[in-house]
Amino acid sequence: MLLLFTIISCQPENVANKVLIKKVLNEQAIAWNKRDIEGYMAGYRQSDSLRFASGGNVSYGWQTTLDRYQKGYPDKAAMGKLIFSDIDIDLISPESAVVFGKWELERETDHPWGLFTLIFKKTDEGWRIVHDHTSSAKS
Amino acid sequence: MLLLFTIISCQPENVANKVLIKKVLNEQAIAWNKRDIEGYMAGYRQSDSLRFASGGNVSYGWQTTLDRYQKGYPDKAAMGKLIFSDIDIDLISPESAVVFGKWELERETDHPWGLFTLIFKKTDEGWRIVHDHTSSAKS
Repeated sequence: MLLLFTIISCQPENVANKVLIKKVLNEQAIAWNKRDIEGYMAGYRQSDSLRFASGGNVSYGWQTTLDRYQKGYPDKAAMGKLIFSDIDIDLISPESAVVFGKWELERETDHPWGLFTLIFKKTDEGWRIVHDHTSSAKS
Repeated sequence: MLLLFTIISCQPENVANKVLIKKVLNEQAIAWNKRDIEGYMAGYRQSDSLRFASGGNVSYGWQTTLDRYQKGYPDKAAMGKLIFSDIDIDLISPESAVVFGKWELERETDHPWGLFTLIFKKTDEGWRIVHDHTSSAKS
């Protein structure tokens, strides 16, 4: 309790923002694991400027990203169980953060995984992803 | 000339910082194309905290990154000609920028390419990459 108080009193805004960003990621994973892709997409800024880079593909826009997810993950077998780990949050301004981490999908037939770099911005709706760069490991 | 003056007078610091960041990338490509990997590595912050994510691998440290490049690109045939394109620089604070773009290697036998997301920080030595997330297209 004393430690918690000390940390919070040192950098209260940073701590609060990291908690809020972590919450967005947790809620994304929970939504994904309920097969709720729109709920998962709530973590992204609902804007045409949202950028999603994966492998060699780059696409723009919230709706395009949603469509891509819905096409790529049509059922429970394809979606599997999403796990985020090794999350590292770097607040680089009061309104921006770089978030780095690992993603995994536990599926019946395989176990794809890889890394992501996210840029979060603080919006009127809360912290939202504005840029996602995801790469896959050759597993 | 008038247009240039107008742009510069609007956001002189942003324009200057974008020019400096672009210059770092240009110098990296020039060094690479002279087979000067250490010159290329001058664009990265010379720190143990430098993070390099590629596919499913993440490594830390300037020296580790240099060693990896030297091992992976031992000669002119492997290095080929490096081209950066579609560069998008987003200054998110006076000391931080997100840079997104495309990389290509023109080689005699193949033409690998992909995307990158870089986090630049303004250091005492100038703008330097502190985080690199690179992905390869399946070409």
